[in-house]
Amino acid sequence: MRAKVHIYPKPGVLDPQAKAVGNALAGLGFDGIGELRQGKLFELELEASDAASARARVEDMCERLLANTVIENYRVEIEE
Amino acid sequence: MRAKVHIYPKPGVLDPQAKAVGNALAGLGFDGIGELRQGKLFELELEASDAASARARVEDMCERLLANTVIENYRVEIEE
Repeated sequence: MRAKVHIYPKPGVLDPQAKAVGNALAGLGFDGIGELRQGKLFELELEASDAASARARVEDMCERLLANTVIENYRVEIEE
Repeated sequence: MRAKVHIYPKPGVLDPQAKAVGNALAGLGFDGIGELRQGKLFELELEASDAASARARVEDMCERLLANTVIENYRVEIEE
């Protein structure tokens, strides 16, 4: 089974990397850009009997390693 | 208009960060994990008259700043 994990800074958390990218884009002449957020993306293959147990395992991975849940939110997508 | 950009290392490009994450997951007891890839994610708001011109601008941003096209592929999604 294939899982995708999207990890973003929580709303309100200072995101200096996204700010730097936004400024760099403006410097290159791209104007009219509003909110910009930068996140991480994991795509993994895992063995699981069904989508629900795959989701539970990937959420456990997020809580324990992939995301810093103090400052980041995560979203898991399971593709069968 | 809202755009999402997914950036991944090209297939065959050495990805030590993903390898480290895979090893760390195995060390935590998560077994049965196959291929793991790590990428970057950008989500941005931009002004554009239609989806096609928004896509063209975001692809231009990828070529010029967001992605390193020597070693990375990107995929743009436009949400209206």
